[in-house]
Formats: sequence, structure tokens, C-alpha cells
Amino acid sequence: MTLSLDTIASNLAGLEETLIYKLLDRAQFAGNAGAYRPGQSRFQPPETASLFELRLLYQETLDTQFGRYRIPEERPFHLGLPAPRRIPPVADTGLVIRDLETVNVTGQIRQSYLEWLPQLSGVEDDGQWGSSVEHDVICLQALARRIHYGALYVGESKFREDSVRFAALVAAQDDAGLSEAITRAEVEERVLARVRAKVEAVQSVSDPELRRLVNPDTLVDFFRSTIIPLTKDGEIRYLYQRPQA
Amino acid sequence: MTLSLDTIASNLAGLEETLIYKLLDRAQFAGNAGAYRPGQSRFQPPETASLFELRLLYQETLDTQFGRYRIPEERPFHLGLPAPRRIPPVADTGLVIRDLETVNVTGQIRQSYLEWLPQLSGVEDDGQWGSSVEHDVICLQALARRIHYGALYVGESKFREDSVRFAALVAAQDDAGLSEAITRAEVEERVLARVRAKVEAVQSVSDPELRRLVNPDTLVDFFRSTIIPLTKDGEIRYLYQRPQA
Repeated sequence: MTLSLDTIASNLAGLEETLIYKLLDRAQFAGNAGAYRPGQSRFQPPETASLFELRLLYQETLDTQFGRYRIPEERPFHLGLPAPRRIPPVADTGLVIRDLETVNVTGQIRQSYLEWLPQLSGVEDDGQWGSSVEHDVICLQALARRIHYGALYVGESKFREDSVRFAALVAAQDDAGLSEAITRAEVEERVLARVRAKVEAVQSVSDPELRRLVNPDTLVDFFRSTIIPLTKDGEIRYLYQRPQA
Repeated sequence: MTLSLDTIASNLAGLEETLIYKLLDRAQFAGNAGAYRPGQSRFQPPETASLFELRLLYQETLDTQFGRYRIPEERPFHLGLPAPRRIPPVADTGLVIRDLETVNVTGQIRQSYLEWLPQLSGVEDDGQWGSSVEHDVICLQALARRIHYGALYVGESKFREDSVRFAALVAAQDDAGLSEAITRAEVEERVLARVRAKVEAVQSVSDPELRRLVNPDTLVDFFRSTIIPLTKDGEIRYLYQRPQA
């Protein structure tokens, strides 16, 4: 299967647009730190996990039964989920990967998101814990989809562009060289500029009496500090496992 | 508790804005009629229900455990869901209602939504059944929230404005009189105009290469033919059960 760079870029931009909407939706609720603390879920009988952790686990347990994690870019945040009850058809992807979990960076996604959340939603408590963690799960799924899509498809397309060079870097286990080889600074700057423009455009049509507005820098910084680096981590993982012949 | 009409109107507008976003998200996938046909879910072992029906049932089974249906305007599409595992705090609402299920119009919401879906998403099949029904559930929850919020809070606030008149209409079981008494044609026209303006504004900042655009009439018609009438049905149900003293 051919992997057109134009198609990949367009899909990535679509995933980023969706992600921006989801993050701005989460920002309508307060930080609600208690929802992330163990033992405060108000579940009966009591659970040691936080409300956030319970919501993420329950939702992934549901989603895996519907076959979500058969899609390459949909990677779960939990190990050991039940087997799918549904095997949806997956088209030939053009990827060369035996175990999709090789590129799974959801551990870092979760940690970075939770650390960044107070910048997005503040440190108040509005009592809306249930809605907050419901939106968190939606945001984490959109983040994982965007990051793993990039890791897999951009990784494969870069390999195909110069397979001899990448094979040599992988054989030499040259992490710094791989990182340099996959970095396109001008593309990253274009992504960041597009994020800023999109946040500004979306919020320009919001009613500020109904919606809390977010400083575009908050989202641009998260793309720069987390989304782009984790995508590149995933790309390198992909390249390391990819058969060279 | 005082129920300020301004607060209610502003909350309704917020719920409508959210709903519009969710419907436009669903429109990014095709109609996928097979996802709504019994026995085509690809579940193993086979299920007689459709993929859509399974997704809705599984999601509500999850959500009820987190206490979603303790919130007055969150009404479920299924009877007989498990008991909540979490009892979130609910502030005093100002509503006077013993059994929230009295105002539940989810049966009509589901039927009207599914009948209207081909106008929103067309009649093609893009293979994305899983994403389609996931978005359907989000749309149905946003619809139920908007409609039942209006039924409950607008119903109560109208009763308080003229309780003598409403008590008499209820005592006489005068459905036509009740319908006339709760109808504000100029408010309905303002809602429809706001929906049109919002759809146009949101789509004016969408990239038409990434997003399928929807004719604003499609959403305006759905508000006129379904959302507003079902809200009024719910208001009348609320008024019939409300103690008059």
C-alpha cells in the first residue's frame, strides 16, 4: 500500500483539530484535583483508585470489547484488558509492525496530560468531577490517536524515503542520529502556528458568556513540550522494530 | 431555591452549542445503515442487537455506575440499568418532582434521531461503524441533556410564573391549553436563528479539506421538528406530575 505524505499530513491535521476541540471542552470544567486522588471516587464499596483512574479503566474495558484497539493508532492506557468481542475489519495499513504495543507511549501521555491539566483548567473545584473525568478520557483518547498515528505513519513514510540511512542508524543504535533524521523543524513550526490559528479561530466564534476562553499559548506549549516530542519517541520506537529488508 | 430565567436560558444556550458541535462531529462519518441493523454487529458470540444498540447499552451501563442518572437532566435510554456505584453530590435543584423518569422522552429522542440521521450523514457506508455509533451515543446524550434540561427547568419556571393558571389547566387535563400556555413563538424563533448562526460560525472556521460541511438547514429543521416539540412534551409531563400547592 502506498502511504501518501499528503494523506498522512491531512489526517494528522484533522486529528489535531479534533484534539483542540476536546481540550477546549475540558477547559469548561475546573481542575478538580480531588478527582485524581486515590480513594476519593465516592464509589461504594470503596475503591482505592481515583475517580479519573476508574473512569479510564471502565471506558477502556468497554472500548476494547468493541474492537477499538484493533485500529493501529488507538493504543490503550491499560495492559490486560479483556479480549475484543468484536473484530472490525481493518484495511491494509502499509505499516510493518508485529506488535503495535511497541510504539505505545500512553504512560507518558497520561503523566504529561495530568501534569499540564492545571494550566488548562486551573486549580479550583467546581464539583463537576464526573464530567471532568469523562472529558479527560475523551482528551486522552484523542491525544493517543494523534500521537500514535504520527508515530506509525510518519515513521513508516520517513523510513521509505531513505531506508538505507535509517537501517544504518538503527543498526548503530544511534538514538541522537535517529532523532535528528526524523526532525523537520519547519514542519514543527507550521504545526504550532496552525494550532495557534485554530484555537484563535474556534474561540472567535464562541460566546464568552457561555464558554471559558483559553490562552492559545497553553495549547501551543503542550504541543511543543509533549505532543511533538512523544510523537518522535513513538517514531523512533517504530523504526527500531521495523524489519529493514 | 430561586430559578433565574437568565441562568436557565444561558445554560440552555450552552447545551445547544455543545449539541451542535457533537452533531457536526457525527456528520464526519457516513450514515452506515448496517450499524443500526440487528445482528450485524460482528460481535462474537453473535448478538441479536445492532452495533448501535449494543454501544448505547454498554455505555449507559458504564455511565450509570458512575452516577450519571442522578443528575435530573441526564435521563437514560434504557430501563433496568444496574444500580450506581457512585452517588455524586447533587445540589438543590429547585425542581418539584418525585420520579425523574416521568419526564423521560428518550424513546422519542432515539426514534427521531435515527430517522433524521441520513439527512445529517447521508446514506453511504464508509466502514467506520465503530466511530459512527460512538458519536451517536455522544449525540444522544447531548440531545437528552438539552431536552430534559428544558423540560424540567423551563417547566418549573413557567409554573412559578403563573401557578394558578397552570394548576387549572392541569386539573382540567387541558393538553391543548397547556401546550399553548408554554409556547413562546418568539423564543423558539430566536433559538432557531441562534442555531443557524452558530452552525455557520463554527463551519466558517473549519477547513473544508478536513471537514465535511453540513447545510445549516439540516440542524435548524431538527431543532424545529424534534428538539423543541420534545422539550415541550417533557414540560407538559413535568407540569402534570408537579404538586400544585
